[in-house]
Amino acid sequence: MAEEAVEEKPANLVEAVSELLESGTVQQARRMLNALHPAEIAHLLESFPAAERKLLWELVDEENDGEVLLHVNDEVRSGLIEEMDDEELLAATSGMDMDDLADFLQDLPATLTGEVLRSMDKQNRQRLESVLSYPEDSAGGLMNTDTVTVRPDVSLDVVLRYLRMRGEMPEFTDKLFVVSRFDRFLGVLRVSDLLTREPDRTVAEILDRDFEPIAADTPAVDVAKTFEDRDLISAPVLDGEGRLVGRITIDDVVDVIRDEAERSIMNMAGLAEEEDLFAPVWSSARRRALWLGINLLTAFLAAYVIGLFEATIQQVVALAVLMPIVASMGGIAGTQTLTLVIRAIALGQVATRNARALLLKELRVGALNGVLWALVVGGVASLWFGRPAIGVIIATAMVINLACAALSGVVVPLSMKRLGIDPALAGGVVLTTVTDVVGFLAFLGLATLFLL
Amino acid sequence: MAEEAVEEKPANLVEAVSELLESGTVQQARRMLNALHPAEIAHLLESFPAAERKLLWELVDEENDGEVLLHVNDEVRSGLIEEMDDEELLAATSGMDMDDLADFLQDLPATLTGEVLRSMDKQNRQRLESVLSYPEDSAGGLMNTDTVTVRPDVSLDVVLRYLRMRGEMPEFTDKLFVVSRFDRFLGVLRVSDLLTREPDRTVAEILDRDFEPIAADTPAVDVAKTFEDRDLISAPVLDGEGRLVGRITIDDVVDVIRDEAERSIMNMAGLAEEEDLFAPVWSSARRRALWLGINLLTAFLAAYVIGLFEATIQQVVALAVLMPIVASMGGIAGTQTLTLVIRAIALGQVATRNARALLLKELRVGALNGVLWALVVGGVASLWFGRPAIGVIIATAMVINLACAALSGVVVPLSMKRLGIDPALAGGVVLTTVTDVVGFLAFLGLATLFLL
Repeated sequence: MAEEAVEEKPANLVEAVSELLESGTVQQARRMLNALHPAEIAHLLESFPAAERKLLWELVDEENDGEVLLHVNDEVRSGLIEEMDDEELLAATSGMDMDDLADFLQDLPATLTGEVLRSMDKQNRQRLESVLSYPEDSAGGLMNTDTVTVRPDVSLDVVLRYLRMRGEMPEFTDKLFVVSRFDRFLGVLRVSDLLTREPDRTVAEILDRDFEPIAADTPAVDVAKTFEDRDLISAPVLDGEGRLVGRITIDDVVDVIRDEAERSIMNMAGLAEEEDLFAPVWSSARRRALWLGINLLTAFLAAYVIGLFEATIQQVVALAVLMPIVASMGGIAGTQTLTLVIRAIALGQVATRNARALLLKELRVGALNGVLWALVVGGVASLWFGRPAIGVIIATAMVINLACAALSGVVVPLSMKRLGIDPALAGGVVLTTVTDVVGFLAFLGLATLFLL
Repeated sequence: MAEEAVEEKPANLVEAVSELLESGTVQQARRMLNALHPAEIAHLLESFPAAERKLLWELVDEENDGEVLLHVNDEVRSGLIEEMDDEELLAATSGMDMDDLADFLQDLPATLTGEVLRSMDKQNRQRLESVLSYPEDSAGGLMNTDTVTVRPDVSLDVVLRYLRMRGEMPEFTDKLFVVSRFDRFLGVLRVSDLLTREPDRTVAEILDRDFEPIAADTPAVDVAKTFEDRDLISAPVLDGEGRLVGRITIDDVVDVIRDEAERSIMNMAGLAEEEDLFAPVWSSARRRALWLGINLLTAFLAAYVIGLFEATIQQVVALAVLMPIVASMGGIAGTQTLTLVIRAIALGQVATRNARALLLKELRVGALNGVLWALVVGGVASLWFGRPAIGVIIATAMVINLACAALSGVVVPLSMKRLGIDPALAGGVVLTTVTDVVGFLAFLGLATLFLL
């Protein structure tokens, strides 16, 4: 039952909703849609082209609007916001957490931002301004301001009564924060301790003073790493003066992890992280054109290298037939090394000292595979064209190119990292440029030297 | 302070530890190592070649062994286990959670597995066997058995006293599970409700009966999706008869998300998800050889297509110079579409009905970019070789190949998905085979028809 709900919903939802829309049973579509979790509605909206998406968006209950907007990707969000009038947008912002609201405000027209700020009470406005004062991808930008704080000198019983009086707790509250009168952070009081220790103990006796808080200017990826390494659900965020300014919760960290992973994959193909599946053709084409243009430059470079050997090719056409094999195998082998090294860099596992050991290992792997496949390719080429010399030349070129691929696979991402360029974004282009140029140069160059 | 610890540790750790090892100040290295979190020690061990890794592993305190072993990747783990004697291994298993122990047992020699089982009391053995009876990548394999259960007919005050008597709570306990006398799951009692509601209310009045439990045979990726969509910290796992058998916690889900993302990236390059950065050269080369071999077959196919046009190339060598451009641009454009579609498939956003709309959009994007870059390439080619006909032919071939790339970018992953093949693994190879073959065929074919 429950399993069915989890397993079969996503695949069928798109299908089911399309059918309802086509058959015009709008009321049924509305019911189905609003019975879903906001995150599921968001995925569904992303799955439809502009016209249907607009129709579906009108069917979403107003009370779900805010949560759904937070879950769709940036590009889809701006599209949906355009469909809403000011009143609907204002309504959508009510009830948002401070961190979400801070993100969301950046997508709103400037006039509306002012209105949202004016509609808040002073305390909330100050909290929002505090979140907005940090970069979006820092701990300060990720944090929420819904901290529950207690003083060290009260007993657990007082804390329990305070919580009952409060009536509810913010989501993901696994610890309360203990602060001095001046909001200075003293430590954390775990909910599990609150529940299991005797009520007449004081907070000061029970609190964990060693819990390491997170500085507001810590980059988001480092926050994610800390949460993962230490298995945290929530953590306090302090400003430069050691004052508690908010807390980060695991749901935001999961988003960071998911976004990071997506960005790597999308960037490797030169796509934007938040690319809309049904972006308008024109804007989609424009964004991808740049990547194709960069690759065209490297393709022309390879063509230029081939052009240097026109006379050789004219005499031995077999070279033109075989040359893509050398370049392609270099590209594949190099990409394997590159991928391994990029991951190691992301995990902080590469330093000057072990880079040499890594390079040596990859060179050996490249040499082994180079020799193996060089023998195969050399054999096939000799038989195909009946000229053993061609076989020897292509085999030699392959060994050279695979060694070079291993070298570039290690050196290119490390150099990019040092230059502050994201290796996941540009590493592949640079690497295949190297393996193409070296592949053609080695193969056609050797042929010119020894065949003519 | 805290920030420094988070930000600067990873980059410097590898460097710092290498220095300590080289200078022989082993005691200092030991202190530094054991002051780290187990996950950090694990990352560090992964960063060193076999010899240093062995040395470091001996420096890790025995009480940390178990946690570290759980955090290193599969390949490194088997290496470390080989260094340990049975006694150390037995000691490492003590205190492991049931889900971790179940995973870990699969890496141990069979004789030791029996010994571990014998060393447990009957209840724990039954729990372990329950986890082991489900596949590793299902909810049952992910779950832990450390559930805290309560009966519906007691008051919150009784629950609070029970927890104080119990003395501690398992990590990530944000809810207790309410079960009948026969372990039948009735609902969840949130810790936040336990803390904020009046103690004289009964569990039956407060419990949430609508919380959807997870079936033990739900695939791990669906569990992750549920946790993300519903912002869960823990969830109950039920067997086929509706009995509570365990619970899944967010830390295991974060691991699933991270592993999934890593697998996609590694698989795209034909690498194993858990590839050891410093795997022995021989085994590393052997694993990568297969991928290179598959790619070699496709390279030979492309070479065969070129070979069909040997006579044409002999007459117009410029064709050999330009042909890689057509193939390469097709590959790049196709990979963009492929990446977008693979992500959409993973998110469950593609169904029969919207696949057509997606194909249409991608064809239009491909056509637009095809025409744009065809004009550029055609112009450059005409000027370079002084033959406008070559420019027209390469431009036409590029438009054909980019349209074909868009078509394959949508159709290839969808067909693979239907055949039960992971598109992230094999999609790229198939796609570039298509764009290579079509690119060479279109360019050289058109040239043969119109140039000779």
